[in-house]
Amino acid sequence: MAENLLQKGHAVAVFDVVPEAASRLASLGAEACPTPAAVVERCDQLVSMLPNSQHVQSVYTGDQGVLGSVRPGTLIVDSSTIDPQVSKEMALAAQAKSAVFMDAPVSGGVNAARGGTLTFMVGGPEAQFGAARQLLEAMGKNIVHCGEVGSGQAAKICNNMMLAISMIGAAETMNLGTRLGLDQKLLAKILATSTGRCWAIDSYNPVPGVMENVPSSNNYQGGFGTALMCKDLGLAQASATATGSPTPLGSAAHQIYRILVNQGLGPLDFSAVYKYISENQ
Amino acid sequence: MAENLLQKGHAVAVFDVVPEAASRLASLGAEACPTPAAVVERCDQLVSMLPNSQHVQSVYTGDQGVLGSVRPGTLIVDSSTIDPQVSKEMALAAQAKSAVFMDAPVSGGVNAARGGTLTFMVGGPEAQFGAARQLLEAMGKNIVHCGEVGSGQAAKICNNMMLAISMIGAAETMNLGTRLGLDQKLLAKILATSTGRCWAIDSYNPVPGVMENVPSSNNYQGGFGTALMCKDLGLAQASATATGSPTPLGSAAHQIYRILVNQGLGPLDFSAVYKYISENQ
Repeated sequence: MAENLLQKGHAVAVFDVVPEAASRLASLGAEACPTPAAVVERCDQLVSMLPNSQHVQSVYTGDQGVLGSVRPGTLIVDSSTIDPQVSKEMALAAQAKSAVFMDAPVSGGVNAARGGTLTFMVGGPEAQFGAARQLLEAMGKNIVHCGEVGSGQAAKICNNMMLAISMIGAAETMNLGTRLGLDQKLLAKILATSTGRCWAIDSYNPVPGVMENVPSSNNYQGGFGTALMCKDLGLAQASATATGSPTPLGSAAHQIYRILVNQGLGPLDFSAVYKYISENQ
Repeated sequence: MAENLLQKGHAVAVFDVVPEAASRLASLGAEACPTPAAVVERCDQLVSMLPNSQHVQSVYTGDQGVLGSVRPGTLIVDSSTIDPQVSKEMALAAQAKSAVFMDAPVSGGVNAARGGTLTFMVGGPEAQFGAARQLLEAMGKNIVHCGEVGSGQAAKICNNMMLAISMIGAAETMNLGTRLGLDQKLLAKILATSTGRCWAIDSYNPVPGVMENVPSSNNYQGGFGTALMCKDLGLAQASATATGSPTPLGSAAHQIYRILVNQGLGPLDFSAVYKYISENQ
């Protein structure tokens, strides 16, 4: 993402807890900074991408955090996937410093980040969305305004809950059909052209050998990690609990992905749920 | 289906337990018969469409059943959605009379039946598939050979299990997003263009008012009944149990649709699971 900003002509200052990541970007023309606070002192627009809610809280409101040094009018875009409630808290804290905080989680994975074709789901004030879009277009191709702050997270969490449910359903269905004697490629084709069609069936089939160029046909390497999906399902459950929303299958999906992580499948692509389903008769 | 056979020039003999159904077809040129056995005495090709496994067993192997009067060489196509194991039993019983029994459950619902655009998923011997296809083309547009007898049922059951899981997931996801403050049409659009995309989101959205011309926007009238989906999920669970296939979400889907039926929602379209999810906070 930072490389794409550099390539599009932005002056970029960076911080990363992994020094090699920052120094690699420095060799491409970025300025490596010793703290997040040092980055924001040099910028009027800031983008962050962090693993989870605590990291976001720490980077913005912790010691040497961004909001201790931010100048009025700074536009902050956080592309982490975190609890929408934390995004709202960060926006209030930024507002107290006359800065604007927007949430903009991404979909598309490492390949889309590299190619500058990410989808950004953006939550924040309408008035600042234009500026955010201009910035994000250097890194993505589909920039969707979802509503007020936190709504980008909400959209991302909803999509990934639906995706996990579809993927487990696809794994169960392909396995059941296989044991009933159906040819796997034929079954995938029938489902892909029927009412059972979904992305997990027609674009990312979890059964090895049914499709080319998907993680299932490459020992579940690459793609979107099972541990990350498990985290997103945890966020969905937290949001569902906070809003009193029943999610019987979303809750079961979270449980199933926790089992996968506990069994050591966390680093594999999340379509490895087929491996779990098909190997546990 | 019988009307389409008549319109395509077939001579048709019919039996139905509802006399009005048979007499209506008689007024269009069919010959109404007093028993299933009387039908098969007049035919060399027979199509049946029945609610569930017991009805198929009764019509074929019961008193005055079809197989008591069938002539050698008769082609039998059963379009009921039933247990694949029962289809296999019927095929063996037909074989003992030198007749051929194929299973060919349909998808597409009442509108596709009326318009002659059904999809038939056909299980039976390769050698007789050509004759079956020729017959079925009078009633459908997509005739798929799935393998040996029972494999049409297997494909249908797999599709409907995947569909039920997707539909419940769509209902949970649309409801969660709504409670998180997202606009429903915007959320449907985001999901439909992301990895959470599925038929239940992009072609049959369960939220009233999100799409036109779907049952959810018409008080869940028409479409595919919740009670029928519940029955198909029961068949999926029977097949999963018989083959030792784990189906954690398929099993939960069956349970959820049983609750809907118990709550009196059986006659509504199966997308009414959104009504259940959104009204039970």
